[in-house]
Amino acid sequence: MFASETVETRVKSIQLPDENVFKNLKTARRFAIDIGGSLAKLAYTATVQRKTSRVLEDDKDADSIYQVSDTNETVVRLHFVKFETKFIEGCLDFIQSHIRGVHSSLREMCLKVTGGGGYKYEELISRKLAVKVDREDEITCLIKGCNFLLKNIPDESFIYQRHGSPEYKFQGVDLNIFPYLLVNIGSGVSLIKVESDNQFDRIGGTATGGGTFWGLGSLLTKAKTFDDLLLLAEKGDHREVDMLVKDIYGGAYSLIGLPADLIASSFGKAARSPRKSSHNNIEETQTQFKEEDLARSLLLSISNDIGQIAYLHARLHGLKKIYFGGYFIRGHPLTMHTITYAINYWSKGEIQPLFLRHEGYLGAIGAFLKGAEEDDAEKYSWEENFAGSSGLAQSSRVLQTQNSNFDMLELDRLEKATLPFPLLLDPDLYQPDTVDLTQDTQARQYWLQCFIDGTKKQEEQAIKSQSQEEDAVTRAAMFREQYLARLEALKLNPCAFGSLNVRGLLDMRSHILKEFNFTDSYSQQKQLENEQALRCLADRLQTLDGISDPGDRALELARGLLAGNVFDWGAKEVADIMETGELRFEDAEEKLQVRPWLLDDFDAWLGKRLNGHTYHCAAIFCDNSGADIILGVFPFVRDLLKSGSKVILCVNSRPTLNDVTYQELLILLRRVAAICPVICEAAETNQLVVMASGQGSPCLDLRYIDEDLVSMLKSEGTDLVVIEGMGRAIHTNFDARFTCDSLKVAVLKNRWLAQRFGGDMFSVVFRFEEGSRLNKQPGTCQDERTGIYENKQHGTSQ
Amino acid sequence: MFASETVETRVKSIQLPDENVFKNLKTARRFAIDIGGSLAKLAYTATVQRKTSRVLEDDKDADSIYQVSDTNETVVRLHFVKFETKFIEGCLDFIQSHIRGVHSSLREMCLKVTGGGGYKYEELISRKLAVKVDREDEITCLIKGCNFLLKNIPDESFIYQRHGSPEYKFQGVDLNIFPYLLVNIGSGVSLIKVESDNQFDRIGGTATGGGTFWGLGSLLTKAKTFDDLLLLAEKGDHREVDMLVKDIYGGAYSLIGLPADLIASSFGKAARSPRKSSHNNIEETQTQFKEEDLARSLLLSISNDIGQIAYLHARLHGLKKIYFGGYFIRGHPLTMHTITYAINYWSKGEIQPLFLRHEGYLGAIGAFLKGAEEDDAEKYSWEENFAGSSGLAQSSRVLQTQNSNFDMLELDRLEKATLPFPLLLDPDLYQPDTVDLTQDTQARQYWLQCFIDGTKKQEEQAIKSQSQEEDAVTRAAMFREQYLARLEALKLNPCAFGSLNVRGLLDMRSHILKEFNFTDSYSQQKQLENEQALRCLADRLQTLDGISDPGDRALELARGLLAGNVFDWGAKEVADIMETGELRFEDAEEKLQVRPWLLDDFDAWLGKRLNGHTYHCAAIFCDNSGADIILGVFPFVRDLLKSGSKVILCVNSRPTLNDVTYQELLILLRRVAAICPVICEAAETNQLVVMASGQGSPCLDLRYIDEDLVSMLKSEGTDLVVIEGMGRAIHTNFDARFTCDSLKVAVLKNRWLAQRFGGDMFSVVFRFEEGSRLNKQPGTCQDERTGIYENKQHGTSQ
Repeated sequence: MFASETVETRVKSIQLPDENVFKNLKTARRFAIDIGGSLAKLAYTATVQRKTSRVLEDDKDADSIYQVSDTNETVVRLHFVKFETKFIEGCLDFIQSHIRGVHSSLREMCLKVTGGGGYKYEELISRKLAVKVDREDEITCLIKGCNFLLKNIPDESFIYQRHGSPEYKFQGVDLNIFPYLLVNIGSGVSLIKVESDNQFDRIGGTATGGGTFWGLGSLLTKAKTFDDLLLLAEKGDHREVDMLVKDIYGGAYSLIGLPADLIASSFGKAARSPRKSSHNNIEETQTQFKEEDLARSLLLSISNDIGQIAYLHARLHGLKKIYFGGYFIRGHPLTMHTITYAINYWSKGEIQPLFLRHEGYLGAIGAFLKGAEEDDAEKYSWEENFAGSSGLAQSSRVLQTQNSNFDMLELDRLEKATLPFPLLLDPDLYQPDTVDLTQDTQARQYWLQCFIDGTKKQEEQAIKSQSQEEDAVTRAAMFREQYLARLEALKLNPCAFGSLNVRGLLDMRSHILKEFNFTDSYSQQKQLENEQALRCLADRLQTLDGISDPGDRALELARGLLAGNVFDWGAKEVADIMETGELRFEDAEEKLQVRPWLLDDFDAWLGKRLNGHTYHCAAIFCDNSGADIILGVFPFVRDLLKSGSKVILCVNSRPTLNDVTYQELLILLRRVAAICPVICEAAETNQLVVMASGQGSPCLDLRYIDEDLVSMLKSEGTDLVVIEGMGRAIHTNFDARFTCDSLKVAVLKNRWLAQRFGGDMFSVVFRFEEGSRLNKQPGTCQDERTGIYENKQHGTSQ
Repeated sequence: MFASETVETRVKSIQLPDENVFKNLKTARRFAIDIGGSLAKLAYTATVQRKTSRVLEDDKDADSIYQVSDTNETVVRLHFVKFETKFIEGCLDFIQSHIRGVHSSLREMCLKVTGGGGYKYEELISRKLAVKVDREDEITCLIKGCNFLLKNIPDESFIYQRHGSPEYKFQGVDLNIFPYLLVNIGSGVSLIKVESDNQFDRIGGTATGGGTFWGLGSLLTKAKTFDDLLLLAEKGDHREVDMLVKDIYGGAYSLIGLPADLIASSFGKAARSPRKSSHNNIEETQTQFKEEDLARSLLLSISNDIGQIAYLHARLHGLKKIYFGGYFIRGHPLTMHTITYAINYWSKGEIQPLFLRHEGYLGAIGAFLKGAEEDDAEKYSWEENFAGSSGLAQSSRVLQTQNSNFDMLELDRLEKATLPFPLLLDPDLYQPDTVDLTQDTQARQYWLQCFIDGTKKQEEQAIKSQSQEEDAVTRAAMFREQYLARLEALKLNPCAFGSLNVRGLLDMRSHILKEFNFTDSYSQQKQLENEQALRCLADRLQTLDGISDPGDRALELARGLLAGNVFDWGAKEVADIMETGELRFEDAEEKLQVRPWLLDDFDAWLGKRLNGHTYHCAAIFCDNSGADIILGVFPFVRDLLKSGSKVILCVNSRPTLNDVTYQELLILLRRVAAICPVICEAAETNQLVVMASGQGSPCLDLRYIDEDLVSMLKSEGTDLVVIEGMGRAIHTNFDARFTCDSLKVAVLKNRWLAQRFGGDMFSVVFRFEEGSRLNKQPGTCQDERTGIYENKQHGTSQ
């Protein structure tokens, strides 16, 4: 029942833009709302039903190794919608009409309300939705929401650097978020010192906030909205209105370090001069100032003031991080710039001014969490859904053209909690992505175009995977439209969803495909390739066993791993080859770069092994289905098992592209075991285990690893990490360093990327690094390591 | 030559109000000017020549003991004049025309300029006055000026308590002025941490200052001047414009301690509502706010902001005192109230917000001192001249009616440096005055009327003392006019010159008399009475020597001291008796209250003396000429000398009323020595010495004692302090406590005061206290002690 309804609602919501805003209302439960003077933020959970592929093992005698069938999966999703408070009545009506009848229990439900407007609209909400309304403390909600975002959303916070490259410097994931100062700039300003989840204190505040900006702005200009006023400010020249240091002293006041252009007195030039007013009438004197200049002066004055007060409170309390939130900020570059400037000016760089991508939702998230405490919402891991979320508010240059004032944030609950990978050398400094596309303009242009170009193929694959579904073509077209729109938007504002990188572009494509019910477009393709590869496995093992020299055999194992990795539907140029005809394993091996490879640590790897070193336990992060996992990885694993190592195969929990999934690999393992006695015995004795990584991406973000895998990695004393493939070892983790030995193995199957590395198509990266301990400045480690990639870049740019 | 010119200039200056502003220009030298955006402050020294009486010893055979003749004394005076910067050209012209020809050396002189305007007006000043202009650093000058005022001017700083009694709580003299935070609110705001005379640091600042208030005020209202804008603010209701906590939350936000009426968002209610603006046109929406409400909101917003920033900087630097200055303050009650409220709110009373009576002059004083460094201006002690100084800027209620925008401060240089009296128990807590007339409304009303009533008599005495002078009547009338005007002004604003007290009223009268060349109105009267008393001394000594019982003799000595104190021209009721006929010493003794006296510690005093205790050195602060010093004090001194004590007679350095002066007492001592061998020998051996106290008042301010006397008091091991007379022991020092024994002896010769003490005319105070050490909370000491007076007060008011 739910399935069809969900599809209907979704499709309808796409056709009716208004309904696109409050999605999944039919399965919605647990509402919370944060009502501010100008913006209201609604939060609710809904269960989203969607189609996915299920693999079921066939009888051993059947033709295929397993059956792929459709099934429904239920995703718990957190929806946040921000809209102007003035539309609240209409929104409540809309919600009421969409949930009526569905939730007979809504009457007994409790809706959490927070924010200043809670008090005003309590009765209206209670009446419209026929629910009991519970008010929650505003600041408690703010903090709860802020902690939740900082813990769950990577790149939630950023430093703003006007005219910097990148303009937004995202902060990744902060493992130690406390203590910090939250400066919430609503109509007024609250400064809250946060020391832990439950320990916080409003240490200060000022009445000069967003209400002052908009209030004085209303009196001084004809701006019709807050955003209009910001636009005016963006255009103005404050020097026409403000008295600068040089206006008083003729230059800098060097003795006390005041630069000539520093504002000495906000609005100082607007003071009525007795001489002027005696000649002109007052009206004339007043209209000599341009609205935009006044607006800018006002914005600078208030932002500077808040900046200084925030700095002073942070200093007094020894806080090094200040997060600025509240409707005054709304991602406005000039505002963020001025506040940042003030904090840097006063703290001389010792205190970090930080902004939040979702600052508008703090209160709503907090209120929701208060209401969902019995659901343990805070114990789950959540993932930002790039299909449903609006992305960072654009600068006022862009705001101007936006008609819709609805902004959304959607978070999907992960089935299991995740934890950081336990073998990272420095988890605080770990950053999965190798290239920051917000900084690297050339790379950004290339990759955005690359994904734009590849969308058509993804669309076709999606349709192909659901050829029996009537609406597959329509849904696939919708995927294409939405994804292309996102890619175009990212050209304008690369920072909309945090740091832009290849991983994010891949994940966003995945999210949107799933949103349109294409959860596993490659399921049949993977099935086919797995079957083909399985048929070749016995021969491959025999070939390997025929090599008597251990060094030669080790090399062939490595080459096999690499050759397998050539079979990648995610790599456009390889996909083209595979589409036009069969690619045999031997052909793939032929394509590999001749040694010395582009990055060739094979001798070091071999040396250590020949020297008699055996690993206690190896964790291998696998990539593709088919030849890659079966002909490349399994023989490599078999060799490790023979040397006595335990092996943990870490594979994606959720499908993406042709990457092998946990469910698939469990079946494949049994098939391989049937062929190879070594594997068979190891699987039976748990010397070889398959574990879900917690991931669902072609890349690998080691900050979010399935908690069970983390636990096993620790308990087994893992001393080797093998990461395979372009997504996991090149786009991400190329610079990752571990406390144990690591092997990063990949074939560069993208010509542009290969050339950037100073190589060519099918260049090989075989990077072996011994584990290290943090015994020098972590910064130094990182610098040394990015060197390889950086040098290549320099090489090609000459 | 100078004398007649000075008189001419002065008289002329009184007839021409304009010229009353820049006084004594003919003798002016060392100019300095602080030019701000709206106010300019000129500083200069001038030498003022004035007539005074000189006493010259006659031949021993002559009729009179000494001759009184007129002479000229030269006073060095520091003039400060504040005027609106817009009048600067006219002022420079005026100055130039008045000093031309007099100062041939002006061309070689250097004029110090500071303040923001220094840079703008440098050329104009140099051209107009034909002087070399030297720019001085603004902040250095500010601090120099601030330190100078805090050290030299009692009651310079005050706490402002709106609706408090008193409204201004003056801080007396702070012996340890460092460290402090100076917040200078000009167009912008500078925060300067001051740690010593030469150590200071601009630790912060904000561009939201006076320029912002006047700038935004010019845009939002039709106010023509800064003061108009303040007047508007005083009348307005900020709640019409500001969003209060209760406007958002319906009441207080109790959880975080925000009261309902706290401003949540300045100008929050002025924000343009989209609903409103769609119905009305924008102009209508804008004019819904009253100018006065906007002005008030603006004033509160800026004051609160500065208050918070100042508090935070003070906290960061561990500073407990914040002085607020700069043209934004200008003594405006609402401004001071808001800043005070903010500091108290944030610091919970731990940091003191202080204002300065002469804050406008800091820069000018500093610049002047920079120029006068070779004159050692900072090594002298200075006294505020109440005749020439304007007093504290009135509240805006009064400002409204003031046409003149010239404000003046005059400081007279004392001949010698002064130091605090070294035997005070707690110099930090010492406060000379017994009753604060700013707090005690009943007493204020009585004393102001009492001085108004007595002015006629002072005028007559002044004329009588200069009967040979043609212009004496005119000058005396001018004295009367100015003094009465001051007294009337003090009725309106009792805080204009610091804490109001009887001492200040007496000193102000003295200053104005001197200003009109009546330096010593009682010189002939004193001469006459001294002669009369000398003729009775031998008999008096014989009477005393005839008393054989030591106790009886001690009592008679005490009664003699008291009887002598009855002869007081400063006490109206006694003066009436003395005017109508001769008052004999015996008659005076008859008038004394019968024992037990109103405050009677005689038995304790006697007990200690009979017990064989002898004092090493007694310091006696003497009161009147005539019977008091000769028949009362000298016999008492003779007894002390006989018991082996050294005696230091401490007498006024400068004449006032009929108080004996240093010059007079030197002559009198020789006359007394001729009569009494004990005195004669003691004087010859320096067992008895006469010392100038450094004072020129009928009262005694132990914070300013001649440095030579201080040095002698210390070196001689003084262990008894005797303070005699109503002015020195009742109006002042009644509550003073010493580290050595002390005796306060006075006859209450004012019926109202006597009754207030629970006594009657001629009630006797004979207070003996043993010296103590600071071994408990100083506060407790003080509380205990004022009890006596306080209780009496309560008694009479029932």
